[in-house]
Amino acid sequence: MEAGLFTANNVWMMVCTALVFFMHLGFSFLEIGLTRQKNTVNILFKNVFIICVGLLLYYIGGFNLMYPGFEDGDMGIFKFAGFGIAAPEGGMTAAYADGGYTWWTDFLFQGMFAATAATIVSGAVAERVKLGGFMVFTIIYVGLVYPIVGAWKWGGGWLDGLGFYDFAGSTLVHSVGGWAALIAIFLLGARKGKFGEDGKAKAIPGHNLPLAAAGVLILWLGWFGFNGGSVLSADPELTSLVLVTTCLAAAAGGVAAFITSLIKYKNYDLTMFLNGILGGLVSITAGADLMSPNEAVIIGLLGGVIVVFGIALIDKLKLDDPVGAVAVHLICGIWGTLAVGLFGSMASMDQFLIQLAGVGAAATFCTLTAFIILFTIKKVVGLRVSEKEEIEGLDIHEHGMDAYADFRMNQH
Amino acid sequence: MEAGLFTANNVWMMVCTALVFFMHLGFSFLEIGLTRQKNTVNILFKNVFIICVGLLLYYIGGFNLMYPGFEDGDMGIFKFAGFGIAAPEGGMTAAYADGGYTWWTDFLFQGMFAATAATIVSGAVAERVKLGGFMVFTIIYVGLVYPIVGAWKWGGGWLDGLGFYDFAGSTLVHSVGGWAALIAIFLLGARKGKFGEDGKAKAIPGHNLPLAAAGVLILWLGWFGFNGGSVLSADPELTSLVLVTTCLAAAAGGVAAFITSLIKYKNYDLTMFLNGILGGLVSITAGADLMSPNEAVIIGLLGGVIVVFGIALIDKLKLDDPVGAVAVHLICGIWGTLAVGLFGSMASMDQFLIQLAGVGAAATFCTLTAFIILFTIKKVVGLRVSEKEEIEGLDIHEHGMDAYADFRMNQH
Amino acid sequence: MEAGLFTANNVWMMVCTALVFFMHLGFSFLEIGLTRQKNTVNILFKNVFIICVGLLLYYIGGFNLMYPGFEDGDMGIFKFAGFGIAAPEGGMTAAYADGGYTWWTDFLFQGMFAATAATIVSGAVAERVKLGGFMVFTIIYVGLVYPIVGAWKWGGGWLDGLGFYDFAGSTLVHSVGGWAALIAIFLLGARKGKFGEDGKAKAIPGHNLPLAAAGVLILWLGWFGFNGGSVLSADPELTSLVLVTTCLAAAAGGVAAFITSLIKYKNYDLTMFLNGILGGLVSITAGADLMSPNEAVIIGLLGGVIVVFGIALIDKLKLDDPVGAVAVHLICGIWGTLAVGLFGSMASMDQFLIQLAGVGAAATFCTLTAFIILFTIKKVVGLRVSEKEEIEGLDIHEHGMDAYADFRMNQH
Repeated sequence: MEAGLFTANNVWMMVCTALVFFMHLGFSFLEIGLTRQKNTVNILFKNVFIICVGLLLYYIGGFNLMYPGFEDGDMGIFKFAGFGIAAPEGGMTAAYADGGYTWWTDFLFQGMFAATAATIVSGAVAERVKLGGFMVFTIIYVGLVYPIVGAWKWGGGWLDGLGFYDFAGSTLVHSVGGWAALIAIFLLGARKGKFGEDGKAKAIPGHNLPLAAAGVLILWLGWFGFNGGSVLSADPELTSLVLVTTCLAAAAGGVAAFITSLIKYKNYDLTMFLNGILGGLVSITAGADLMSPNEAVIIGLLGGVIVVFGIALIDKLKLDDPVGAVAVHLICGIWGTLAVGLFGSMASMDQFLIQLAGVGAAATFCTLTAFIILFTIKKVVGLRVSEKEEIEGLDIHEHGMDAYADFRMNQH
Repeated sequence: MEAGLFTANNVWMMVCTALVFFMHLGFSFLEIGLTRQKNTVNILFKNVFIICVGLLLYYIGGFNLMYPGFEDGDMGIFKFAGFGIAAPEGGMTAAYADGGYTWWTDFLFQGMFAATAATIVSGAVAERVKLGGFMVFTIIYVGLVYPIVGAWKWGGGWLDGLGFYDFAGSTLVHSVGGWAALIAIFLLGARKGKFGEDGKAKAIPGHNLPLAAAGVLILWLGWFGFNGGSVLSADPELTSLVLVTTCLAAAAGGVAAFITSLIKYKNYDLTMFLNGILGGLVSITAGADLMSPNEAVIIGLLGGVIVVFGIALIDKLKLDDPVGAVAVHLICGIWGTLAVGLFGSMASMDQFLIQLAGVGAAATFCTLTAFIILFTIKKVVGLRVSEKEEIEGLDIHEHGMDAYADFRMNQH
Repeated sequence: MEAGLFTANNVWMMVCTALVFFMHLGFSFLEIGLTRQKNTVNILFKNVFIICVGLLLYYIGGFNLMYPGFEDGDMGIFKFAGFGIAAPEGGMTAAYADGGYTWWTDFLFQGMFAATAATIVSGAVAERVKLGGFMVFTIIYVGLVYPIVGAWKWGGGWLDGLGFYDFAGSTLVHSVGGWAALIAIFLLGARKGKFGEDGKAKAIPGHNLPLAAAGVLILWLGWFGFNGGSVLSADPELTSLVLVTTCLAAAAGGVAAFITSLIKYKNYDLTMFLNGILGGLVSITAGADLMSPNEAVIIGLLGGVIVVFGIALIDKLKLDDPVGAVAVHLICGIWGTLAVGLFGSMASMDQFLIQLAGVGAAATFCTLTAFIILFTIKKVVGLRVSEKEEIEGLDIHEHGMDAYADFRMNQH
């Protein structure tokens, strides 16, 4: 391969790595924007913790657990290639990975993905989870569960052998985080005041919608790298198609959620619009490289509708998900995964069933492991802060800090 | 063409596409930062609407209206290549567009530009425009007016045949938005309290200057893609020259506006500094690839001075433009377009007259169409919210939301 | 060289230039986030001033002072290649700089670095420095001191001849800023209320931790370009290694600071976590291309520990550094520079001594020049605002503006 092509490929993959890293600011802004001021420092702390620890865990063992070098017939649940990272011979030349990137880029791009699963959970459990318990959960879930599931498909394991397709992680990233979020909010219970005496869900408004909106726009930007980089090279046709399908699905998801919520609630709801964009993005993620623009719009539109009804469903189930993470990441993650069997160049009944099997496998493994981890934490150290702490805010109790300590109104 | 060069070109164009997309966060932050808290959700909603709907409209018909395949002699006002997008044969190979990018990248890069025109209007009409009316205006203006004017030059239409030059859109993007902004604030009238009983303009301070400043820095970053991508390839000489002229003009515009406002108002005015940066950026946009660094500095300096006097002029005309959009985008857009005839490698009296003709053509078409659209909306559904709604805030009335609902001061 | 490779190299360097530019938003957010609301406009003004004026100064003379074309034996303190910038013959072809970038990209990338040194000082002197005096300091320090020291190594001067190594500027950028910050806070004195009657340092909490956290994440993103671009081409092996060492050091620095402060202060301190990330980043900057991932983690971990103790030390010395700039940029800058002699492919006792010499040379020149400039300003126009102004806030007194003028709490 010519040096220029190899270099251009690697440049694109490094840019995408940077964009996926930047998604962590998007998640942080979205989560603090949609929650109350008194828990802001706590959420920021969790997110910064997840990025740093997630990357270090991926360096210590996650990468080798996710890409253990499965061979045909090697169809177990997991395999481990050892601790630490060290570039293999030839890992820096165009001979590696068809010249799509170097081994170092490979590690870092995948490492930036790894932390995402825990971040999804972070939003769902916000405002009531104990910091210590959440940190333990993050370490185990990001360090072990995420890479094991990832290995099944992206590491060449049994789901890959089965023909399962998940381009950039509707299942492997978003559902993996979403299942844990679902289990976590079930075990945690709702925030005080979320459900009235009549049992009806009440909106607990967030404290900073500009940051929430910024978070979603930053996430959309990050998705240029999340999906665009999942081509694993800068192949002009594939990367540019993927950006088109990704952006069209995002736009369609937003508009669909806005219109659905306008009809359903007679309201121009900014939060629904924003979550609809995310729903469109998660929905297209599994098949962003397989769809035509028209199909991407349809998948995104349905993703946006799903988000509005998904959020209503979570409320009906008396579950409390402050940022809508389960609707966006889990339900749209499932929808996007199944859509690969319904639309685009791989659509067939067989493929649909294989996609369903992949969804089921992730569901089984993730709910089981998340339940075991979280239930154990609940029993051993406790998962939820005290009532006093919840009312007064986690920032003061867990951190001794106020996110806007000096903020004064109309001081002059 | 070697695959490496084609791939590197396309990588650059995709990066630029992402940067232009990110400008929408810059516009959002700038607009909410310079306006009052009570209208924040409304402005965010409008901006998110513009991005999503703008991109979808461009997919439905805008792209084909803007690049209809004009041929020599095909000198009409508009031509339409049909609905939807589908890559032409060879659109993904280096044979397309001299190998500068793929057809998908072409669509997406141009699509990200399309919404910008409406965003410019959004800032000018903030705090008093009816949401429904503005959405209708956006759909027509972004869906029809912007691509028709764009086709005259970038689509190979009659302005292109005339020799008109507009590298990245001082006229085709910024003035197109700016003319509509001017018509809109004329039809809307000023916000309550903007002009005192003595008829003098009063400052209505914005509620979040950190976000306004962040908005301008994000827009500057986005301009790396806006101008850098308008080379339509990664040609090393042209792209790097364009980034140099763009950044020098931005810096010079900021410094000039800061010093001008210091002399004129005896004040270190952050808002003027920021708008001066934008004025420099808009001014260099028409000829960023034609200017030497020295010429870029001169064009930027004058752009910064123009912004300060332009904002004063709008006030004198009893027009109310909360973010200075008309001074920045319209007046500097005109200045930048004319500067192509005065400075740089195309400067000549003939070129100056052609540039003037282009400015006049955009002025005529845009003011006319904007007036017809906005006047019709005004008569049919109304353009302005009620006095009660304006006083109490659009967030509560149009959205039933408060941007900082839970925000508490010094709570502990 | 093939055109594709040259183009891909230049694309990477332009992307890195954009990322380094974006760091200025990171610095702005970090500084305003960690300081009080009443000085927010002032800090934003200073930062915007630094970017614009820094770039213009670099265009006027800085670039030619930093890269004057030193020849062997040309071992003086400074040399000047003249005013203004004009691309040399061949500066736009692959013959220039081994095809790593064009001459225009070279200028702009270096220009984005130049302003950084002054930005570091800005944070340290926040909330009490006179705007006029600071602007004069910025002009001299960015326009003369920074490029002179830079020329010693990156311009091929005497430190380069000596064998001193500083990959991306632990000394040449961060310490150069850090030394001036140290001198400045010594000459300025502490903010009122920083030290109680008992002489003990008291925390003066910042007014916006979400923006502080966002600032650090943006700075981390920017470091992809700061270090990644310092390869001066898109060489796949080196650039991707540099991103890996940079990110691992950042993550390790954050975790180390979080744990150190947890042990030392029994607190989950978000600010320490954030400053630890920056400490890790500054520490790896001198040798990011020389280290293995394991060594990067060690260097980052120590950087994070150093930040916590460094901040305590500054307090003990009765110096007042509102954002921790001296600990992060100066002390970690020294540590990172020395680490080149202790770890990685250049480690040796000789190299360690040479690194020490470089640290000493920067220390001598920067403290001397910073002292002369700042002491002169202090005597001539004064360095510090009046007590009344400090108490009431610089925003109202220097700018006649309030950063959040319209902000209202729970208005409905």
